[in-house]
Amino acid sequence: MTTSTFFSSILSAQHDHTPAYTSQLGAARGNSVTVRMRTTLPVTAVRLRVVQVGEIESFVAREVGDLGGEGRWFEAELPLHSDRVRYAWTLDLPGDHLNLTALGLHHTRRGFRNWFQYLAGHTAPEWAWRSVFYQIFPDRFRNGDPANDVQTGEYIYEGRPVEHVEWNTPVDAHGDIHAHYGGDLNGVTQALPYLTDLGINALWLTPIFVSPSNHRYDITDYRRVDPHLGGEAAWDELAQAAEAAGVKLVLDGVFNHMGNENALFQAALKDEAAPERGLFTWRDTPGKPPYHAFFDVPTLPKIDYRNELAVQEFLSGEESVVRYWLRRGAAGWRLDVAHMIGTDGTDDDNLPLHRALKSAARQEKPDAFIFGERFFDPEHALDGKGEDSAMNYHGFGLPVMQWLSGATYFSEPSQLAGPEVAEILWDAYHALPPQVGLSMVNLLESHDIGRAMYRVGNDRTRFLAAFTLLMGYAGVPCTYYGTEVGVTQSRAGNMPWCREPMPWDEADWDTDLRAKVKALIGVRRKTHALQEGNLRFLHAEADAIAYLREYTHADGRTERAAVCASRRTESHEITLTLPAGEWRDALTGEMWTGGEVTLNAMGGRLLLQG
Amino acid sequence: MTTSTFFSSILSAQHDHTPAYTSQLGAARGNSVTVRMRTTLPVTAVRLRVVQVGEIESFVAREVGDLGGEGRWFEAELPLHSDRVRYAWTLDLPGDHLNLTALGLHHTRRGFRNWFQYLAGHTAPEWAWRSVFYQIFPDRFRNGDPANDVQTGEYIYEGRPVEHVEWNTPVDAHGDIHAHYGGDLNGVTQALPYLTDLGINALWLTPIFVSPSNHRYDITDYRRVDPHLGGEAAWDELAQAAEAAGVKLVLDGVFNHMGNENALFQAALKDEAAPERGLFTWRDTPGKPPYHAFFDVPTLPKIDYRNELAVQEFLSGEESVVRYWLRRGAAGWRLDVAHMIGTDGTDDDNLPLHRALKSAARQEKPDAFIFGERFFDPEHALDGKGEDSAMNYHGFGLPVMQWLSGATYFSEPSQLAGPEVAEILWDAYHALPPQVGLSMVNLLESHDIGRAMYRVGNDRTRFLAAFTLLMGYAGVPCTYYGTEVGVTQSRAGNMPWCREPMPWDEADWDTDLRAKVKALIGVRRKTHALQEGNLRFLHAEADAIAYLREYTHADGRTERAAVCASRRTESHEITLTLPAGEWRDALTGEMWTGGEVTLNAMGGRLLLQG
Repeated sequence: MTTSTFFSSILSAQHDHTPAYTSQLGAARGNSVTVRMRTTLPVTAVRLRVVQVGEIESFVAREVGDLGGEGRWFEAELPLHSDRVRYAWTLDLPGDHLNLTALGLHHTRRGFRNWFQYLAGHTAPEWAWRSVFYQIFPDRFRNGDPANDVQTGEYIYEGRPVEHVEWNTPVDAHGDIHAHYGGDLNGVTQALPYLTDLGINALWLTPIFVSPSNHRYDITDYRRVDPHLGGEAAWDELAQAAEAAGVKLVLDGVFNHMGNENALFQAALKDEAAPERGLFTWRDTPGKPPYHAFFDVPTLPKIDYRNELAVQEFLSGEESVVRYWLRRGAAGWRLDVAHMIGTDGTDDDNLPLHRALKSAARQEKPDAFIFGERFFDPEHALDGKGEDSAMNYHGFGLPVMQWLSGATYFSEPSQLAGPEVAEILWDAYHALPPQVGLSMVNLLESHDIGRAMYRVGNDRTRFLAAFTLLMGYAGVPCTYYGTEVGVTQSRAGNMPWCREPMPWDEADWDTDLRAKVKALIGVRRKTHALQEGNLRFLHAEADAIAYLREYTHADGRTERAAVCASRRTESHEITLTLPAGEWRDALTGEMWTGGEVTLNAMGGRLLLQG
Repeated sequence: MTTSTFFSSILSAQHDHTPAYTSQLGAARGNSVTVRMRTTLPVTAVRLRVVQVGEIESFVAREVGDLGGEGRWFEAELPLHSDRVRYAWTLDLPGDHLNLTALGLHHTRRGFRNWFQYLAGHTAPEWAWRSVFYQIFPDRFRNGDPANDVQTGEYIYEGRPVEHVEWNTPVDAHGDIHAHYGGDLNGVTQALPYLTDLGINALWLTPIFVSPSNHRYDITDYRRVDPHLGGEAAWDELAQAAEAAGVKLVLDGVFNHMGNENALFQAALKDEAAPERGLFTWRDTPGKPPYHAFFDVPTLPKIDYRNELAVQEFLSGEESVVRYWLRRGAAGWRLDVAHMIGTDGTDDDNLPLHRALKSAARQEKPDAFIFGERFFDPEHALDGKGEDSAMNYHGFGLPVMQWLSGATYFSEPSQLAGPEVAEILWDAYHALPPQVGLSMVNLLESHDIGRAMYRVGNDRTRFLAAFTLLMGYAGVPCTYYGTEVGVTQSRAGNMPWCREPMPWDEADWDTDLRAKVKALIGVRRKTHALQEGNLRFLHAEADAIAYLREYTHADGRTERAAVCASRRTESHEITLTLPAGEWRDALTGEMWTGGEVTLNAMGGRLLLQG
């Protein structure tokens, strides 16, 4: 990227998805929308360029009256000839010619990956943009009803009896999947006041259906809530209470594989002539199960969507699992290993299957939020037709935590510095359609990777830098249960070490931390620019990064937020240039005037304007 | 990109497609190949990471004996589970962890677009890598038989009589498509000694089939050579003579649209019940032809490949046009507006159609070379299954000429500087599978855009800088008829100004220029590193760029070429770091020793080693 464009507080040419620049998001194919650009450059002509049937059409943009900000405004009509329209601007100047794409301002016409994108007819789950998610691993969050706990020896799984473990016992490797702490949905319902007090308005629950392990990604019955979590009644009670509390519930859809105790698999296993046989991909490979399975784990047979029965049963049938739980009150689905779902034991047909799933979900609930676990870069899958977005490991959580902790999530030490963090975050963000970018589920940690607090050496300052970046970034922030009170790990690693039980004795809480986390969540919840604004980077040095979020209303009024964070644990003054006007620290109330400012980025800062 | 990785003469970690690093190209799916990496870093472990079914598998690489070069070598087996395998390396170091992708060495795991790619089962047209192409616009190259010339008033096209124009008459706007100079295939045959003397061993002929215009992109009969070009006999004679001279002939396939005088279209037009009706996409849109047409030009009805008859007739049928001319001696096809081909008046199904075309061509001739005109970035289309490659306007010709001439090909002035040229060239190159990168058809000019010589103000020095970059770059160089003797334009613009007739009176030639062009072609023809080597950039400043090409044999022996060019017309000393060893200017014989060297890049330089 051209650095001069990349790190700039005042863009010499700007276009984004907010109302001043794009009259409407998601207008239907066949229509057109008005798009605008603003520039401080001495342009002699501005053109809108649009990809159509593989060619580029060019439209002269007309100058329009002042909509605020520095510079002049131009507009043109963007014809929506396809579901995903790619477009760019060209600027003629005395002695120069420039191209404005989502990547920035360049002298050369950039690849289509870098162009602006308009998703015609796409409806984003906009409630998610206004949400702060909280991820709950049900067995470890809160035991609301000890009567439903798994008892030691109650059943055998993978040849070993399950165990009931006392709350507050540190997790150990032995109990990886067999240790049941007794958390349940009753507990989640009880905790709703706690969660709403924290500012949370959406939950992602890892699987809640009948399953033998404590993580429940090995589902025995997709249509029944695990009795050890309180069963159907507990779900219904939670769904009602959550709705009353204004909290959305997103479930975890494990559609790549099921548990081997599932009746469908058992039927297939017992009878080669059973119709269920076709739900799986049978093979004869030495040393591997006789069917494709998740990472060849025999208890996790992979579902083969070449079989229409599988598509109907789980994804898009009138009574599919996807539809069933949306009817019963779920607001959406997080899709486990979304990138693996496919036909014939592979990920073939992955995108068409996701489109079928999404389409069914939206028929059932027009604002259902569907996001995939795509651990690696998900760009190819996110054109609006399949999942709304993905968990943002690639474009946010992994680089940010690697930088702040000085190690990858596999504990490999790393000298990753701020400029590369900014570069990879920007590379990932700019290539997504704007509604997808705003829907990405940002996270620092999860049930699959180490806790942020532990990874920063339990240092509150560095943790808060991370949490500030999370609340400020483009996309939907998702925090992990217990993070707010300082839950950490007993040792390095990912799962199961990141699955400690939530402490409910307030004496075990870091109440100061919780107050700061709550304050940051509060800022996020009430700041439109953070929920729906654009993104650009303002600054990057080895130990600090800063970015700007900006939302420009149709009348030109602009709301802005600037977010910066240092990874140092002592005072770290950084100098950056902020857009003109008054700026106020959202937490401390400290004030700055735009232009070149120097501030202490230690622990993170969130500045607001407008 | 991380600049420190990008501009580096000695990579601290290296992997590429050449034999020392990749044991075999194009091995079949289901097999594995050995891949190696070499590093000067103090690694403690190296792993190969491979994308499989959407997941990443990791294999520990073993250290192997010294294969030459600085540093240590590691190898692993790359399993070929899919047609396009994406892979990367990770390096553990004391206190650090790095990822090596095709983009370079980074601390973060880059997006899959940046990973190395292996095309399993792909056979590249390797003869093209060893070729220097010469593009001929038949009407303007050489009149071998005046008896077959179009006569003034011989027929009417678009309501106007065609005109015979005397050779050496400058082109004018009036004669855009109606002026016929009389060039023919007989002339091409006559010129074969001239071409082989120049070093040319492959020709791309723009269309030669029966057509009313002088450019012949409006084809009346795809199975007959235009009688004005000498007809079938002239083709057969040319094909034989070219084969004897070791010159391959690539034809121009216009499969997006045909000419309206074509019998297929006439049949469709006259009878709504005719089977030919379905070859086109009929519509009722005010102000437009009643059928989809190339840019709505009525004489160029677009072919609708939703109709299987169209697929059979042109692309993949047993007697398709594609097959027919391969049987009659063509070595391949350049596909006109390849990006537009599709169904239903759109570019839908573009890639499947190209796969069908390619598959038929390869059945007919296992080394047929199929490349598309894709004026914009073609990355999405080039996975080896469709076209072998594309005309490299996006990733070479347009940026290079814009930089050297200070203007876009639409004469818009441009301040484009060397670093952005290097950046966009690298961005385009690194994202292609290696055999595709080596097959890209690089060009400075064509029948569609202004001549390079004219665009650099007829300055020989700047032109030679361009031509040096062309002969040195990764991909197949293609020069345009007349360029070697200084053919230029009478005025600014693209077509028809770039279609002046070739002068055959040697008094009109710039013989000094021709000698230099011939020498550069000669270097290209005999330098393996230029034909099949890797690519990386060594240097970029506003007025100069330099890159390295490197081919490492299985025994570690490395052949290298370094190419640099300045756009200044006076001496321009640049300083860059070359790999160790002796270097020799391929044209002047001047010698340098590797390390930091200063040299005059004016007019371009090509240095060789090994």
